[in-house]
Amino acid sequence: MDRTLTDVKIRREQLVSITNGEPVAYCEALFATSSAAPEFIDITDEVQSIVAASGARYGQATVFSGHTTAAIRVNENEPLLLQDMARILHQIAPLHADYEHNDFSRRTVNLDEEECANGHAHCQHLFLSTSETMPILEGQLPLGQWQRVFLVELDRPRQRRVLVNVIGVRG
Amino acid sequence: MDRTLTDVKIRREQLVSITNGEPVAYCEALFATSSAAPEFIDITDEVQSIVAASGARYGQATVFSGHTTAAIRVNENEPLLLQDMARILHQIAPLHADYEHNDFSRRTVNLDEEECANGHAHCQHLFLSTSETMPILEGQLPLGQWQRVFLVELDRPRQRRVLVNVIGVRG
Amino acid sequence: MDRTLTDVKIRREQLVSITNGEPVAYCEALFATSSAAPEFIDITDEVQSIVAASGARYGQATVFSGHTTAAIRVNENEPLLLQDMARILHQIAPLHADYEHNDFSRRTVNLDEEECANGHAHCQHLFLSTSETMPILEGQLPLGQWQRVFLVELDRPRQRRVLVNVIGVRG
Repeated sequence: MDRTLTDVKIRREQLVSITNGEPVAYCEALFATSSAAPEFIDITDEVQSIVAASGARYGQATVFSGHTTAAIRVNENEPLLLQDMARILHQIAPLHADYEHNDFSRRTVNLDEEECANGHAHCQHLFLSTSETMPILEGQLPLGQWQRVFLVELDRPRQRRVLVNVIGVRG
Repeated sequence: MDRTLTDVKIRREQLVSITNGEPVAYCEALFATSSAAPEFIDITDEVQSIVAASGARYGQATVFSGHTTAAIRVNENEPLLLQDMARILHQIAPLHADYEHNDFSRRTVNLDEEECANGHAHCQHLFLSTSETMPILEGQLPLGQWQRVFLVELDRPRQRRVLVNVIGVRG
Repeated sequence: MDRTLTDVKIRREQLVSITNGEPVAYCEALFATSSAAPEFIDITDEVQSIVAASGARYGQATVFSGHTTAAIRVNENEPLLLQDMARILHQIAPLHADYEHNDFSRRTVNLDEEECANGHAHCQHLFLSTSETMPILEGQLPLGQWQRVFLVELDRPRQRRVLVNVIGVRG
């Protein structure tokens, strides 16, 4: 614990240096239907396919969840690990704990007809994220060996909308 | 818990495909004064206004906090929920717990004249984020029904600086 | 706790408005060797140097970890604080707790020859992030006084690869 900071040697390697490339802006929506919660839906292949379709050789892709109870995360797709992560999310903000947000006797804001008790999902989402931004190199996301992009359902089964937004250059 | 991963059907829909658009780079600073901690300051309207002012039709906006004890998060602006989220932040890293960072008898680094005991705020910030990057479609952030952008004050009331940085094309 | 939301006054200031700048796409890889876990490796100077080398005057830099057990975070580089943050990470997902991911008697997916028990590192990573995206103004990251960019090793000492990806305009 007393070695959390060190002077490590850092090596650099230039991969890309492009000027005057033709600008590209490209966006697709992904619609995925979750079947449980929490659920880690692996959308990596679709995201890579969209990046390829964009025509951008270099740039950035932002994967953006349009929801406050569904998040975007990059982690490993190993089924037992997904159970561990579901358990940790539950520890942080359990489904059946007390949430003011779930007190429909007091709440007056943002109530709609299908309102469910989902305070836990919002609180879990606070610690995950709405988006992830990744580099594009040679027309694809240069993901590491174990990196997969997940849409994380935190609330209940339903259709979710994710935007995959690319900005870059043709190279 | 044994259904955290599934093969869900995913549908795609192309929204934008622009090449040769005129590049846009635009940035504004927002200065907001917090009045409590934790405090969730809803800056959505200002961010949308800045995106509109940028002239970018497609691209990305990054909302960036210039602070290590104030974060950027997207979640729902429902007052009772904000209380739930404040409580969960407190559980993760309570204000009055022991932090090495607050031990001014031992600490020698980064001390300034106004130094306050804010170890909890740094530790909460670790689990939130410094920025959020969002797509721009048709000149605005395509936020979902409940999505609002918050500057989250974690430390104590003061003026905070947020950058809203746009990069994109006129379309 | 009843003042988590307020109507604060927000002031705006335009910093940049560029059109027709020459597009820039630039990327370098950083290779850093960690020596402990958790370890906060301060890569700020290298990232700033890469942004300068890119030639981009305005735009965005994404710092991206190519790993599922090493994260990117922006926080303060104060040695005692780094110990606090290491402790909080341990509370969230302790090294020696039970993880399904570590049960090699049951696990069948993504096993390689060097497989180690690292469920805690994946679970900690879930609450940190794979990347951070930051604005570029006048050819550098406009970091606040205490902001430093860290590669956070969560697993065990080894070489890690970080991409620093710039997209912007020459201005």
